[in-house]
Amino acid sequence: MDEFSEVCRKQELDPLIIEDMLNENHLPKVEIFEHLVFLIARIFPDKEDLSRSSMVCLILGEHFVLSYEPGFSFFDSLLAPLKIHERASKSPESLFLSLCDGVVDSYLPLSTCLHRQADMMEEEALDQPGKDFSIRFQQLYKILGNCRRAVSIFHEDFMKLTPLNTPLISKSSQHILNDIRDHLRGAFQMLETNGSLLISIRGLYQDAVRQRQSEIIQHLTFITSIFIPLSFVTGIYGMNFVNLPLLESHYGYLVIFLLMILIAAWMWIFFKRRLKE
Amino acid sequence: MDEFSEVCRKQELDPLIIEDMLNENHLPKVEIFEHLVFLIARIFPDKEDLSRSSMVCLILGEHFVLSYEPGFSFFDSLLAPLKIHERASKSPESLFLSLCDGVVDSYLPLSTCLHRQADMMEEEALDQPGKDFSIRFQQLYKILGNCRRAVSIFHEDFMKLTPLNTPLISKSSQHILNDIRDHLRGAFQMLETNGSLLISIRGLYQDAVRQRQSEIIQHLTFITSIFIPLSFVTGIYGMNFVNLPLLESHYGYLVIFLLMILIAAWMWIFFKRRLKE
Amino acid sequence: MDEFSEVCRKQELDPLIIEDMLNENHLPKVEIFEHLVFLIARIFPDKEDLSRSSMVCLILGEHFVLSYEPGFSFFDSLLAPLKIHERASKSPESLFLSLCDGVVDSYLPLSTCLHRQADMMEEEALDQPGKDFSIRFQQLYKILGNCRRAVSIFHEDFMKLTPLNTPLISKSSQHILNDIRDHLRGAFQMLETNGSLLISIRGLYQDAVRQRQSEIIQHLTFITSIFIPLSFVTGIYGMNFVNLPLLESHYGYLVIFLLMILIAAWMWIFFKRRLKE
Amino acid sequence: MDEFSEVCRKQELDPLIIEDMLNENHLPKVEIFEHLVFLIARIFPDKEDLSRSSMVCLILGEHFVLSYEPGFSFFDSLLAPLKIHERASKSPESLFLSLCDGVVDSYLPLSTCLHRQADMMEEEALDQPGKDFSIRFQQLYKILGNCRRAVSIFHEDFMKLTPLNTPLISKSSQHILNDIRDHLRGAFQMLETNGSLLISIRGLYQDAVRQRQSEIIQHLTFITSIFIPLSFVTGIYGMNFVNLPLLESHYGYLVIFLLMILIAAWMWIFFKRRLKE
Amino acid sequence: MDEFSEVCRKQELDPLIIEDMLNENHLPKVEIFEHLVFLIARIFPDKEDLSRSSMVCLILGEHFVLSYEPGFSFFDSLLAPLKIHERASKSPESLFLSLCDGVVDSYLPLSTCLHRQADMMEEEALDQPGKDFSIRFQQLYKILGNCRRAVSIFHEDFMKLTPLNTPLISKSSQHILNDIRDHLRGAFQMLETNGSLLISIRGLYQDAVRQRQSEIIQHLTFITSIFIPLSFVTGIYGMNFVNLPLLESHYGYLVIFLLMILIAAWMWIFFKRRLKE
Repeated sequence: MDEFSEVCRKQELDPLIIEDMLNENHLPKVEIFEHLVFLIARIFPDKEDLSRSSMVCLILGEHFVLSYEPGFSFFDSLLAPLKIHERASKSPESLFLSLCDGVVDSYLPLSTCLHRQADMMEEEALDQPGKDFSIRFQQLYKILGNCRRAVSIFHEDFMKLTPLNTPLISKSSQHILNDIRDHLRGAFQMLETNGSLLISIRGLYQDAVRQRQSEIIQHLTFITSIFIPLSFVTGIYGMNFVNLPLLESHYGYLVIFLLMILIAAWMWIFFKRRLKE
Repeated sequence: MDEFSEVCRKQELDPLIIEDMLNENHLPKVEIFEHLVFLIARIFPDKEDLSRSSMVCLILGEHFVLSYEPGFSFFDSLLAPLKIHERASKSPESLFLSLCDGVVDSYLPLSTCLHRQADMMEEEALDQPGKDFSIRFQQLYKILGNCRRAVSIFHEDFMKLTPLNTPLISKSSQHILNDIRDHLRGAFQMLETNGSLLISIRGLYQDAVRQRQSEIIQHLTFITSIFIPLSFVTGIYGMNFVNLPLLESHYGYLVIFLLMILIAAWMWIFFKRRLKE
Repeated sequence: MDEFSEVCRKQELDPLIIEDMLNENHLPKVEIFEHLVFLIARIFPDKEDLSRSSMVCLILGEHFVLSYEPGFSFFDSLLAPLKIHERASKSPESLFLSLCDGVVDSYLPLSTCLHRQADMMEEEALDQPGKDFSIRFQQLYKILGNCRRAVSIFHEDFMKLTPLNTPLISKSSQHILNDIRDHLRGAFQMLETNGSLLISIRGLYQDAVRQRQSEIIQHLTFITSIFIPLSFVTGIYGMNFVNLPLLESHYGYLVIFLLMILIAAWMWIFFKRRLKE
Repeated sequence: MDEFSEVCRKQELDPLIIEDMLNENHLPKVEIFEHLVFLIARIFPDKEDLSRSSMVCLILGEHFVLSYEPGFSFFDSLLAPLKIHERASKSPESLFLSLCDGVVDSYLPLSTCLHRQADMMEEEALDQPGKDFSIRFQQLYKILGNCRRAVSIFHEDFMKLTPLNTPLISKSSQHILNDIRDHLRGAFQMLETNGSLLISIRGLYQDAVRQRQSEIIQHLTFITSIFIPLSFVTGIYGMNFVNLPLLESHYGYLVIFLLMILIAAWMWIFFKRRLKE
Repeated sequence: MDEFSEVCRKQELDPLIIEDMLNENHLPKVEIFEHLVFLIARIFPDKEDLSRSSMVCLILGEHFVLSYEPGFSFFDSLLAPLKIHERASKSPESLFLSLCDGVVDSYLPLSTCLHRQADMMEEEALDQPGKDFSIRFQQLYKILGNCRRAVSIFHEDFMKLTPLNTPLISKSSQHILNDIRDHLRGAFQMLETNGSLLISIRGLYQDAVRQRQSEIIQHLTFITSIFIPLSFVTGIYGMNFVNLPLLESHYGYLVIFLLMILIAAWMWIFFKRRLKE
C-alpha cells in the first residue's frame, strides 16, 4: 500500500478518487475531470466462478496512464505481449484505449460461456429437469444479473467518453472509441439475449413440471376408473345374501367375469373420450 | 481471401472495418466515417431454417460501393435484373440505397413466414397441444428473438443515416431513405406483433394444460364419488355378522340394489351441484 | 385503376407514394414532403368484424386534397352531409383536417364496443367461464392488439403534423390539430385501459379455473376421507377368521355401525379442521 | 343550459372548448391558448363509490376565472370558506391556482382510502381469502386503474403550465405551481405504490389457493396411504380359500391386527419422509 | 414548536416550505429557490424495523444551513465528531454537502441489510419454505418497495442540484456532488438488484410448492396403482360363487399370492415407465 499512496501523492490524485479506488465493490463508472479521466470497470477473472467480479481502475492523465487492479494482474497480461520500448513509445491516450479495449474484449468469452450454460439448462428443461434444477437455475440467473449490471452500467457511462467532453481524447481516436462501444454493445446484447433466454427456460421448466404432474394424475385416474367399478362388482358378489342371482349357477362366475371385462372396456373408452374432449 | 485483402488495400479501408467484416457474428450497425458509410446487416438466407442468419456488409464511398457477403450471393441476386450498363450508370449513392432497400425488403417475407407459424401454433394450442409443443414453441420463440434483434438494431442504427450526418447521402434521397425506414418499421412492427402473439400463445397452452388436468381430476372425482359409497354398502353386506337385517330375506338384495341406485343418484346430483357452485 | 393512375400522373405524385397507396396492409403514417402531406390511417369499417381493418389515404397539396380508400366509401360518408358548394368553398387545409377528424372520431365507438365486449368477458370470468372462453378471449385479445397498433402508430406519427414542419398547415389551425390529437389520445387511452382490463380478465379466468379445480379436489378428498376408513371396517368384519370378536353376538353389527358413525364424524371434523388450518 | 351558453357566448369561448366541456367523459387535460388556459380534471366526489369520477373544468382568462362542474358543487365547497369580498379581491390567477390546488388536494384522501382497502385485502389474502375475493379484488383493481389514469394524465399535462408557456401565470406563482405539482406527484406515487401492492396481493392470493390445494391433496394422500394397504390385508382374509394360513387359528386375527398396525405405522413414516424429501 | 416557528420567522421561510416540513410523510424532494435550496430526504433510523422511515429536511441559504428532523437526532450524530469551532469554520455549502453525503451514506448499510434478508429467504425457498413464508416475504417486499421509492425519488431530484441551477453551489463542489450521486446510484442499484432477486425468489417458492405437490400426487398414485389392482384380486376370491377355480385347491392361495406379486411388480414398472415418458 505504501507504493500505492506514494503514486497517489505524486500524481496529486483527488482524495475522492482514491476513496473510490479503495472500495473494491465500486460500480463501474467513467468520470471526467479537468485534467484526468477516471474509469472503473468490473471484470470476471475466474471463468470457473463467474459469481465473483473484480474491480479494475484506469486513470488517464495528460502525460501518464495509471492502472490499479487489487489482487491480480489483468492489465499485466494485456500488456505482456508488448515489449518495454513499445509501451514507452505509445501515447498515454492510445495505451488507455487499448486497455479499455482489453477490458471490453474480456466480456465476450463471458457471454459465450453463459450462453453455453443457458443452452444446457434449456435442453435439460425440455428433456428431464432434475431435482436440483431450481438451485442451478437460480445460480445462473444471479450470475447473469451480476454480469449484466457490470456491463450495462459501464456501457452507459462509457458514452460520456468523447472528444467533445475531454481534451485528453483526440478526435482521431473517435473511430477506436466507436469500435470499443460496438464491442460493448455486442457483449451487452448477448447478455440481454441470455437473460430473455433464461426467462423462457424458467417457463419451459414450469411447463415440464405441470405436464408431468398432469400425466401422473392421468395415470391415477386411469387405474382408478378401471378398477374401482370392477371392485364394486366383486363387492356385490361378496355380499352374503341368500339368493343373489347367478351365485349358485355353475358358470355364474364366468358371466360375471365377462361383465367385468365389458365394464373395464367401457371405462377405458369413456376415459379416453373424456381426455380428447 | 486474396481478392478480399487486395480490394481492402486498394480502397485503404480502416483496419477496424476489416476486422468487423471478418467477424461473421457481428451485430447490425451503421457507422459513418468522414468519407465512408459502413453498414452491416443480417439477413436470413434460408427460409427453411430461420435460426441461421448471415452477415452482409456494404461500404459507400465517394466513388464506389463495396459489398461483402461471406458464403452466398444475396446482393448478386438483387443486382441480377440490372444489366451491366445499368449498374454502371447508377450513382454509388443510388446503388447503395437500392441494396439497402433489398435487404429491408427481405425482412417482410420473413415476418410473414413467422406469422404463419405462430398462427399454426395458436390453433394447436387452442385445440389439442401435442407432446412436443413446448419444444417447437421454444424453437419458434428463439428464432423470433433472433430476427427481432437483427431488425431492431438495424432499425435503430439506420436512423443515423441522414443527409445531415454525411455528405455521401444527398438531400434528394431523403424520401428514399424515409421509404426504407418505413419498410423497416413495418417489418419491425410485424415482428413485435408476432412476439406478443407468441406470448399469448404460451398463455393459451398453459390454460389448455390446466383445463385438461382439471377435467381429468373431475373424471376421477366423479368415478370415485359414485363407486366408493356403493362399495361401502357391498362391504357392509359382506360382513360375516350373524343377523344383519335383510340378509336372510328373499328379496333383501333387491332392496339393497335399490338403495345403491338411490345413493349413486344422490352422489351424482351432489357432485354436479358442487361443480356449479 | 385507370382513373387512379391518371390522377396520380396529373398531380405528379412521387412513385413511392403510389407504391405505398397500393399496399393495402401499410401501417399508418404521416409523411411530410415539401409541397405535400401524405397520410395513411387504418379504419375499421365493419363494426361486426373488428379483426379486419382497411387503409385510407389522404394527400394534402397546396391547392387540393386527394383521398384514396380502396373498396369502400368512408370519406364519402363523411362528406355526404356537405353540399357540393360547401365542399368547394372549404380550403384544402380545413377539408383535410376535417377528414382527419372523421378518421379519429371513428375510433371512439370502436373503443366503446371493445370495452363492452371486455366487460362481458369479465363477468363471465367471474361467474362461470365456459369451455370456449379461451378461444373467444384470444380473438378479442388479437383484435384489441390490432386496434392498439393502428391507433398508437397513427398517434405517434400525427405528432409530426405541426405548422412548424409544413407550410401547408397554417398557424390558426393549431387548435384544431390539438383537438384531433386530444381525441386520438382519448381513443388510445381507452384502448390501453381495455388492454390492461383484458390482462386482468385472463388472471380472473385462471383464478376461477384453479378455484374450481381446488373445489373438485376438496370434494374428492371429502368423499374418500369418509368412506375409505368405513370400508376398512367392513373389510375387517368381512374376514373369514373363526373367532373375530362381536361376530357371533346378537347386536354385534349395531356396535360396529355405531363405531362407523363415530369414525365418519371424526373424519368429517378432521377434514374440516384441516381445511381451516 | 341557457346560462351556460350565455356565459360561453359572452366570453367568446372557442367552440372546441365548449364541445370538450359538454363531453362528461373527457380525459384530464391542460390546454394553453393565447388568452386562455383551459383545464379539465377528474375528481371523485363520492368517497363510497370510487368507480365513478366526474369532470371539472376551469378556464383562466385575463380578467376572469370560469369554472364548470356538471351536476355537483365541488368548487363551491372549496370557495365556501371565502367571503364574497375576499373572492373579489383575489386575482384570477391566484383564484385559479387555489382551485387547482383544491382539486389536487382531493386526490390525497382518495389514495389513503384505496390504500386502506388494499391493506385489508392483503390481510385477507394472507389469512383466509373468501369465495368472493376475486370479485372484490377486481373491483378495487379497476377503481385504482381509473384513479391512476385520471391522476397520471393530469400530472403529465399540468407540467405544461409554466410562466414560460403562458403570460397568464406570473413568475411569482412558480413556487405555488411547484407546490401543486409536488402534491400531484405525491398522490401519483401513492397510487403507484397501491398498484404494485395490489399486484403483489394477487400473487399472495394465488399462493394461498395453491397452498390450500396442496394441503388438501396431502390430506387425501395421507388417508389413502394408510387405509388402502390395510383394506388390501382385510381383502386377503376375506378370500374364500380353504386353507389360508392363520384363518383357523384361535388368535389369528390378533396376528393380522398387529400386522395391520405395523403396515399403518410404516405407511405413516414413509409418507412423512416423502414430504420432507 | 416555538423554537421552530421562531427560526422560520427569522429566516423568512416561505409558508409552503414550512407546510412541507410539517408534513412528516412528505416524499423526498429537492427544490431550488432564488436564495435557498430546500431538500427533503427520508432515512431509516431503526435498522430493526425498516418499514418505518423518517423525514429529514435541509435548507441551504446564503449564510446558513438549517436542518430539521422531527423526533430524533440523525444530523446530530453526523455532526458529533466535529468540534464546535470546526463546524463554525465550515462554509454553509460544505456543511450542507457533507450532511447530504451523510444521508446517502446511511442508505448503503440499509441495502446490505435487505440483501442479507433476501439471501436468507432465497435459501429457505430453495430448501424448505415454511408456512409463514408468504407473510414474511410480503413484509420484506413492502419494506424494499418503501426503500426503493425513497431512494429513487431522491436520486432523481438530486440531479437538479448543479452549479448551473443555483449560485449556492460553487463550481468547485461539482466533484463532491458527483461523488454523492455516485453513492446514491450505488445504493439505488443495490436496491434494484434486491428487487429483482426478490421476484426470482417468489418464483423459486412457487416452484417449490408446485414440486412438493407434484411429489405428493406421485406418492398417492404410486400407492393407489399398486394396491387397487391387488384389492380387486382379493375381491374376486371374496365372491361367494360356488365353483370359482382354485378356491378348493390346496395351494390355490399361493397361486393367487404369486399372481398378486406379479401384478404389483408390473404396476410398479408401468408407473415408473410412465414417469419417465
